[in-house]
Amino acid sequence: MQDAFSVIYHVRSTPKEIAGRAEAIALEQSVELPRAAVRDPHIAENILARVESIAPLGDDQFEVVIRLARATTGDEPAQWLNMLFGNTSLQEDVLLVDVAMPEEMLAAFIGPRFGVEGLRKLVGAEERPLTCTALKPQGLSSAQLADLCGLFARAGIDLIKDDHGLANQRFSPFAERVARCQVAVEQANAETGRRCCYVPNLIGSPRQIAEQVRLCRELGVRVVMIEPMLVGMALMHELAASDPGMAILAHPAFGGALRIAPALLFGKIFRLFGADAVIYPNYGGRFSYSPQTCKALAENLLHPWGGVKPAFPVPAGGMQVDRVQEMLDFYGKDVILLIGGSLYMAGDALLERSRTFVENVQKGGAR
Amino acid sequence: MQDAFSVIYHVRSTPKEIAGRAEAIALEQSVELPRAAVRDPHIAENILARVESIAPLGDDQFEVVIRLARATTGDEPAQWLNMLFGNTSLQEDVLLVDVAMPEEMLAAFIGPRFGVEGLRKLVGAEERPLTCTALKPQGLSSAQLADLCGLFARAGIDLIKDDHGLANQRFSPFAERVARCQVAVEQANAETGRRCCYVPNLIGSPRQIAEQVRLCRELGVRVVMIEPMLVGMALMHELAASDPGMAILAHPAFGGALRIAPALLFGKIFRLFGADAVIYPNYGGRFSYSPQTCKALAENLLHPWGGVKPAFPVPAGGMQVDRVQEMLDFYGKDVILLIGGSLYMAGDALLERSRTFVENVQKGGAR
Repeated sequence: MQDAFSVIYHVRSTPKEIAGRAEAIALEQSVELPRAAVRDPHIAENILARVESIAPLGDDQFEVVIRLARATTGDEPAQWLNMLFGNTSLQEDVLLVDVAMPEEMLAAFIGPRFGVEGLRKLVGAEERPLTCTALKPQGLSSAQLADLCGLFARAGIDLIKDDHGLANQRFSPFAERVARCQVAVEQANAETGRRCCYVPNLIGSPRQIAEQVRLCRELGVRVVMIEPMLVGMALMHELAASDPGMAILAHPAFGGALRIAPALLFGKIFRLFGADAVIYPNYGGRFSYSPQTCKALAENLLHPWGGVKPAFPVPAGGMQVDRVQEMLDFYGKDVILLIGGSLYMAGDALLERSRTFVENVQKGGAR
Repeated sequence: MQDAFSVIYHVRSTPKEIAGRAEAIALEQSVELPRAAVRDPHIAENILARVESIAPLGDDQFEVVIRLARATTGDEPAQWLNMLFGNTSLQEDVLLVDVAMPEEMLAAFIGPRFGVEGLRKLVGAEERPLTCTALKPQGLSSAQLADLCGLFARAGIDLIKDDHGLANQRFSPFAERVARCQVAVEQANAETGRRCCYVPNLIGSPRQIAEQVRLCRELGVRVVMIEPMLVGMALMHELAASDPGMAILAHPAFGGALRIAPALLFGKIFRLFGADAVIYPNYGGRFSYSPQTCKALAENLLHPWGGVKPAFPVPAGGMQVDRVQEMLDFYGKDVILLIGGSLYMAGDALLERSRTFVENVQKGGAR
């Protein structure tokens, strides 16, 4: 089979059964027929997936590498995902771990439009780690959220994003909220000379999101957030491909298919599909990822990969202000630190604690 | 909290920790802040989610019911999913099991446009179970697929769907394939007097799918297939809401987040989001669902539910022709039996075996 790529799965099986199981995955992810029913020699040669290797991992786990024909993806991102893990995602003994593609295949994907460098330019921070926080809780009015947005911008936080639970609810309708928050951040920037960005959350159906994007552009928004697993991976890809003039911050909500390795889903697939920065649960917070998983995820976002730009890791999920130095030591300077609740716990001292967060990141990143 | 709904999770925990864990889920799925940071009494009263009940299930598993404010969903389907399982999907100790909404909340969802009754009328089968098969394998030309489509239509199979791996690949480009297969099925129908339907597979970005839908309407297609987990749940909902004059067959590909109970995801959520028929892995095939799961899933698709029409269960995934009677006994008449590979194994006797499948379903369903 020429012009092919490799997909790596971890499969739970006995040593006796693994060869048959691997063969079944190859059939499921290509022809979806018993081998005996594949009668066309052209298809058997060029379309049928192959088992490339099987390696024991211990504990009845095996690494299985399957070779898929590139032609089956039609060079189209949604269909590529389908080929990686369409039906096999329904089999609970299989974890999708990684994918290895020849460089020329990467051209089918848009990848980050801004990437690390573009986002740095946007906020005027060429060297240091970036800071991020969230407007919350939902239930506040647009005016209250805009006040918070202005406060965070005056504190110097680079990216001030909507909480991912902010949609188009009555208490802070999208159009009203985005207009007010954008004005608030621009006023603060005019005072401080900074380039902090408000990051609205896009959510809804494709047409609703198209309308939200239109409004954001009109209002001068430079970065938007999206939850690809909720609104569609292909939608994010299409948004990036349409060159909206806005960077994309991807949020992992609804992405809890832990049977796709997080380093692959959030590190590689989100990057290929156009995210300029990817939020994910950091180790040691409210979620369960290990330091190893977080490191691998961040490396996947940043490593040189053909013509695909690097994207920022945004570790989050219960991060504390007093962990800033530890996170900078762990991730280095190409990182966006997202801290939410730990700032809000300051109550009336929210501005001071936000300033401390910004200063600590600037100091720590410059060490 | 007034105007609320309940979400049911299964949580792995010790008896000592479950109360704190349940409280943390309530916070995560609403304000995403520590409780102490919720300072606004209106939000504490009306937006903050509540733990409604905690019940032990044995083996360190608990059923946790959380009450969410309807206002947080904005009556918008993608945001509703976000509220159900956005961030909590990232926590591996939690399974999303069910949702219970007051009837007036169902009005936010489109539900099936055709449903069981509409699909029955479309194919002219008011009482009996329906039959379905798939055009495969990918790699065949459009002409070869159209020949197969004509053969299955002459055998009397009600719904002849694209394999979910058929996209817009060079070997059978979407526009060419759909045009040829639609002609083939119409010619066969003209000969037999039946109303078999060809069911093209929609896949790609929102704009590509909009174009595919336009083409399908133009060609007189009456049923389309879609993989909501690959192309976006909200996209399927928007498609149904746009009243395209075509029924929607939903395919479970990439839906293997086994941490959402299949009976909920495929039985209730797919139905709410507009699927007229839902394919899922039947017990005893290539996949791992139990008979109990399949029964619960089918019941969720069919049970009376406010103004939401029932949708057809389509058990599939390695079904054999000789299991027809067993499946009819298990599911009754409101079912679409989807058999693929087992027909193809007949080789040159494909037409005969397809006819036998159709006859057995008609006989069995009439018992």
